[in-house]
Amino acid sequence: MSRSHARNSRHLNTRDLAAVAMGRKPADLIIKNGRLVDVCTARIHDHMDIAVCRGVIALVGDTSHVQVGSHTKVVDVSGRYLCPGLIDSHMHVESTMVDLPSFAAGVLTQGTTTICPDIHELTNVLGMKGVDLFYQSAKGLPLKVLIAMPVCVPALPGMEDAGAVVTPALVQEAYESGMVFLQGEQMNFPGVVFGDDTVHQIIAAGIRSNQVLTGHYASSDLNAGLNAYIAAGMTADHETTTAEGAKARAMRGMYVQLRYGSAWLDLPQLAEAVTHDPGCDTRFYTLVTDDVSAATIVAEGHLVRVVRKAIQLGINPVTAVQMVTINAAQMLEASRWIGSLTPGRAADILVVDNLSQFTISRVFCDGVLVAQDNELCRPVPRFRYPEWALNTMHLDLLTPEDFYIRAPHETPVRVRAIQVVPGRVHTMSKTVTLIPENHGLHADPEQDLAKAAVFYRHAPDGTADRSRGLGFVSGTRFLPGSAYASTVSHDCHNLLVVGMDDEAMALAANTLINSGGGLAVVMDNRVLAHLPLPLGGIMGLSSMEVTARNVEAVEKALVKIGCPHPSFEMTLSLLGLVVLGELRLSNRGLVALMEGHPPQFVDLTIDS
Amino acid sequence: MSRSHARNSRHLNTRDLAAVAMGRKPADLIIKNGRLVDVCTARIHDHMDIAVCRGVIALVGDTSHVQVGSHTKVVDVSGRYLCPGLIDSHMHVESTMVDLPSFAAGVLTQGTTTICPDIHELTNVLGMKGVDLFYQSAKGLPLKVLIAMPVCVPALPGMEDAGAVVTPALVQEAYESGMVFLQGEQMNFPGVVFGDDTVHQIIAAGIRSNQVLTGHYASSDLNAGLNAYIAAGMTADHETTTAEGAKARAMRGMYVQLRYGSAWLDLPQLAEAVTHDPGCDTRFYTLVTDDVSAATIVAEGHLVRVVRKAIQLGINPVTAVQMVTINAAQMLEASRWIGSLTPGRAADILVVDNLSQFTISRVFCDGVLVAQDNELCRPVPRFRYPEWALNTMHLDLLTPEDFYIRAPHETPVRVRAIQVVPGRVHTMSKTVTLIPENHGLHADPEQDLAKAAVFYRHAPDGTADRSRGLGFVSGTRFLPGSAYASTVSHDCHNLLVVGMDDEAMALAANTLINSGGGLAVVMDNRVLAHLPLPLGGIMGLSSMEVTARNVEAVEKALVKIGCPHPSFEMTLSLLGLVVLGELRLSNRGLVALMEGHPPQFVDLTIDS
Repeated sequence: MSRSHARNSRHLNTRDLAAVAMGRKPADLIIKNGRLVDVCTARIHDHMDIAVCRGVIALVGDTSHVQVGSHTKVVDVSGRYLCPGLIDSHMHVESTMVDLPSFAAGVLTQGTTTICPDIHELTNVLGMKGVDLFYQSAKGLPLKVLIAMPVCVPALPGMEDAGAVVTPALVQEAYESGMVFLQGEQMNFPGVVFGDDTVHQIIAAGIRSNQVLTGHYASSDLNAGLNAYIAAGMTADHETTTAEGAKARAMRGMYVQLRYGSAWLDLPQLAEAVTHDPGCDTRFYTLVTDDVSAATIVAEGHLVRVVRKAIQLGINPVTAVQMVTINAAQMLEASRWIGSLTPGRAADILVVDNLSQFTISRVFCDGVLVAQDNELCRPVPRFRYPEWALNTMHLDLLTPEDFYIRAPHETPVRVRAIQVVPGRVHTMSKTVTLIPENHGLHADPEQDLAKAAVFYRHAPDGTADRSRGLGFVSGTRFLPGSAYASTVSHDCHNLLVVGMDDEAMALAANTLINSGGGLAVVMDNRVLAHLPLPLGGIMGLSSMEVTARNVEAVEKALVKIGCPHPSFEMTLSLLGLVVLGELRLSNRGLVALMEGHPPQFVDLTIDS
Repeated sequence: MSRSHARNSRHLNTRDLAAVAMGRKPADLIIKNGRLVDVCTARIHDHMDIAVCRGVIALVGDTSHVQVGSHTKVVDVSGRYLCPGLIDSHMHVESTMVDLPSFAAGVLTQGTTTICPDIHELTNVLGMKGVDLFYQSAKGLPLKVLIAMPVCVPALPGMEDAGAVVTPALVQEAYESGMVFLQGEQMNFPGVVFGDDTVHQIIAAGIRSNQVLTGHYASSDLNAGLNAYIAAGMTADHETTTAEGAKARAMRGMYVQLRYGSAWLDLPQLAEAVTHDPGCDTRFYTLVTDDVSAATIVAEGHLVRVVRKAIQLGINPVTAVQMVTINAAQMLEASRWIGSLTPGRAADILVVDNLSQFTISRVFCDGVLVAQDNELCRPVPRFRYPEWALNTMHLDLLTPEDFYIRAPHETPVRVRAIQVVPGRVHTMSKTVTLIPENHGLHADPEQDLAKAAVFYRHAPDGTADRSRGLGFVSGTRFLPGSAYASTVSHDCHNLLVVGMDDEAMALAANTLINSGGGLAVVMDNRVLAHLPLPLGGIMGLSSMEVTARNVEAVEKALVKIGCPHPSFEMTLSLLGLVVLGELRLSNRGLVALMEGHPPQFVDLTIDS
C-alpha cells in the first residue's frame, strides 16, 4: 500500500460506505456486541457493533438497522474487546531471517496488521532492485506493508561498502514510483547535524515529496544535536535508550518509538517516561520492534509481545494500544485510513479476549477473517524469487591466511578492541594488550578476545573488490578453536567472521560462501550449525517456525562454543554497524564514533 | 501557504537549521528564559530558550551555545509563558465583514497566527475568481492563511441560486492549483448520506488529492447518519451543539471543532464532553470560531476568546491550548510545520503573561515580532480590489409590490413560518394563522410575525433571473413600520429583507441596491442605519474597529425597531441557509429539512 494506493482504495467507495451505514445496502461483515477499544478518546464502550463494506468500516455503533444480505457475515463476539490491528511503525523484516510472505504468515495470527519495514538490509545487498522485489512480494498480502525507503545505503559512505549506493536521485525516484510510503531511518545522524550535503539532499527529497522522515539518533546529546536533528525534519526516532531521551524527543514533537526487540530490550527503561509522569500526553509515543528474531516471534509474539510488556511495566492497556494504533497512524499521517476502529478506516480488527493479557482470538484484515485462535484461516501465498536475488555471495573461498594480522613489533602490542554488550546495541572501545606470536596478533581466549573479520562480498558492477577489515572483539566468551560466521551483518551485510582460531574462521566463512550466505558455527574443524539464507544472504525461504528452530540450533551451537548470552547472533550482527558508537568493524577497517565527533577510521594498534 | 508552499519553505533550510542548533551559524532570533507550554506532552517546562533561523524553530532548550550574530535579536521573556500561535481550523473571514488584510491586522495582535478560512461566502458571490482573489490578498501577510476550498456553492443546488456553481471539476482544479490547503465544509450532509453523485464526486476529488475534508453535519442522528458521513471521508466537524454529539464524533475519529462564535455559543454545552470525562484523550477536540463579528473580536478577542472561555468552563489551560495548536495541526496533517514550539516548526510564538487568563504580550510570526501589547509593530498592507469585485448588486430597484403575498382565499390561512432562535443556528417550522387583508397575507406584529423576502442578486452569465422567495418569520420582535435588509445572507448572499411593512422593506432593499450591498435598518420610512459592504456585498474595506462600530450602529438600530436579541443580524443572516433545518427561505421559496429526510420545497400555506 503506497500513499497513492491508500487513497485509491477509498475515493471510489464513499457512496457504498454511506449506503451501508444508512441501511440501504447490505454490509459485507457485521461484528456484533463488542467492547470497543476507542483509541481516539481512550475509552472502552460496551455493546458496540461494527459494519464493514469492501474492507472499510462503514459504521461503529448500533447495526440493528444495517442490511444483512446473502453474502453478509455476521459475527457475535459476546462482549469481547474489539481493538484496531497493530501497527509496527519501525521494523526490519530481514531481522527475522524469513521473507515477507513468511513474515506475514507469522505475525498476522498475532494481530500485527500493518508494518513499516525499512528494508535497508535487502537494499544494501540488492539496491533498488531489492526495493522493487520487496514491493512485488508485498502485493496481495493481507498484511499492510508501508515500505520505508532506505536512505542510508551504505550507512556511512566512504567508511564501508554495500552492494549498492542509494543516492538522493534514487530516493526521489522511489517517492515518485509510489512504491514506498515513508522515508527510512536516517542513520547518518552526524551527517544531519554536521550538514553533510548528500544527507540533506535526501532529506530535501523527502520533505518535497511530503514523506514522513524517520530517524536514528544514537547520541546522548539531548540539546544541540537532538534539536539539530529534529529541526532538519526528522519525525520519529527509535534509538533512545533512556526515559530522559524519550521525553526530550516527545516534547520536541518527535515521535518516540519505544523499542523492544529480541536483543535490545530498551522498553523497561523507556516506559518510565510515561509511567513516572502520570497524566502526560502520550500521543507522541509508539512501540516498535525494530529487530526481532523468528524465535522471539514464535515463542513470545511480535508487536503483541511489546504491548504486553508495556502493560506489565505499568502502562495503561488502552494507552499501550494507542501507541501501536492511533499514535503510529498519526505519525504516519495515515490516521484517516488506519489505526482506529472508526468509519472510513480499514477494517483491521482484533477480537481480544483479555485486554491486560492482550490475548487475541480473531484477526480481521480489511474485513476478512485471516486468523483465528492463532491459526491462519488460509495460507499466505509464497513468492517466487529470481535467481539474482538468491546468489549474492560474490567472494572466492578463504584460507586461514586471510585472517592473519601482522604485529607491528615483537613486544606487547596495545590494540583497540570492540567490547560488545549483550542485549544492547552499543559497543565500547576497549584497549587490550596482546603478545605477538609468529609475528602475528591472535585471538586470546584467556582474556576473552576473539578475532573479527569483515570481507566485502558484493559485486554491484560485476566484480568484488576483495576489501576486508580485521580486528578484535571482547565479550563473546568463545572457546579456543571456535568460530562464527554470518552474512547477516548490518548494514552492508558483508561476510562477518568472529573466532578464536583462523582455521575455524576460514571453515565457517567458506561454509557460507558455498551456500549463498547465512549463519555458521564451527568448533574444532566441525560445522556445529549452519543456517543457509539464500535470499540476499540474509533471509531464508522457510517458515517462521522452521527458521526459529534453525536459529535456535545456531544459538545452541553458540552456547556450545562458550557464549552464554541469549540471541548473541543479533548482538554480533551489529558488530559492523558503523553508525553506532563507539567502535565497529567494516570491510575497510575499524571505525570509531565518539559522542560529539564525526566517525573516523582508527588504527587497530595504539602507539605507545 | 498551500501544501506545496509549506514544504517548499522547508526543504532548502534544513542545513541552516541544523547549523544554528549546533552553534555553527548565528540565529536570527533567540528567546530566552521562557516557560514553555509543551503541547506535545502537555507539560510546562521552565527556563526554556528558543532559537530561530529563517522563520523556523531551530532549537528548543538551552541556547547558551547558540551563536549571536550582528543581526541576531535576543529577547529575554523573564519567565513568561511561551505558547504556539493559535490555529483557527474552521472559520469564515467574511463573517467579520472586513477583508482579509484588515482581518489579519485585527487578529494577529490577539495571537491568531493561522486560519483555515472556508471562503464559501465570497465564492458564492464571485465564484472561482473569488478564490483566486482571496488567495492573492493573502500573499505576504504574516498571518498563515490555509484556504479551505468551498465545495457547496450553492449549498443545495436546485433549491437556491448563488453567483456561481462550484463543480467537482472546479474543485479538482483548485487542488491542482495549490491555492487551497483543505476541503471546505461539506454542508450538503443529506447529499453525503443519501449518496448524491455530485457530492461524492467532490469527496472523491478531495480524497484523491489527499485533502483533509471538513464537515458540517447538522443532524442529531448520531448512529446511521453520523457514521455514513464520517465513513464517506469527513475528517472534522463544527456543527455539533451537544456534548453527546461531540463525543460521538471524537470516538469515531472525527475531529470535533467546538464552536464559540458571536451568535452561536455552543462551547459551554460542548465543553462538558471533556470536563465531565476527566482523563479522556482530547486529541480529537479543537476550538473554532466559525462565525465571529468584528465587534466580538474588538471587544472580547478572536480565537483567544474561545480559549479563555474554555479555561473558564474548566478545561485545563494546557489542554485548551492544545486544542488550538497541536490538535488543529494534526487535524490538518500539518503538525510537522505548525502547531507546536518544536524544532522544524514555524516560529509562531506567543509570549503569554498569565496562562489561565491567557493574556498575550507579544506575538511572533515566522520569527518576526508582529505585535506587542495588543498593537501591531507595523501596519498590514492593504489590498487593491478590482472593480468587478466591488459591484455585485445585479438587481433593479424594488417597489412595495415586490413584497406582496397573495392569499389563497379570504378565510383565515394557515402558513408555515420560520421560527428563529436567537443565539442558535437552528430554526423551527411553526404553523401560524393569518387573516387575509386586501387579498394578501401581511406581517403581523401582534403575533411577532415578520415578512421575509429573498431576491436573487447575482448575474453569473450577465443577467439576473429576477427569482425571489417570500415567507414569514417569527421571533424578530420587530415593531410595526420597520424593516431590515442585508446582502449578508448565507450562503448565496442574495438580498434578504425582513420587515413588518412592505414599504419599509422596499426602502431597506433599495438602500442596499444603490450602495453595492451591506446592511440597512429602516423605521417609519427612514433609514436608521446603513453599513455598506462593497466587496462582494458582504465585506467592507474598513478596519476591524471601524466595522465593529458600524455593525454596532446597525445592532442599535435593530434594538430601536424592537429586536432585543444580541447580534441578531447574524441570526438573520442564516434565515436563508437551506442546508440547516428545519425551515429556511431561498430565492426559490421555502425549504424544509427535517431530521432523516432530504430537503424539499414546501408551500407557504398549509391546506386544511
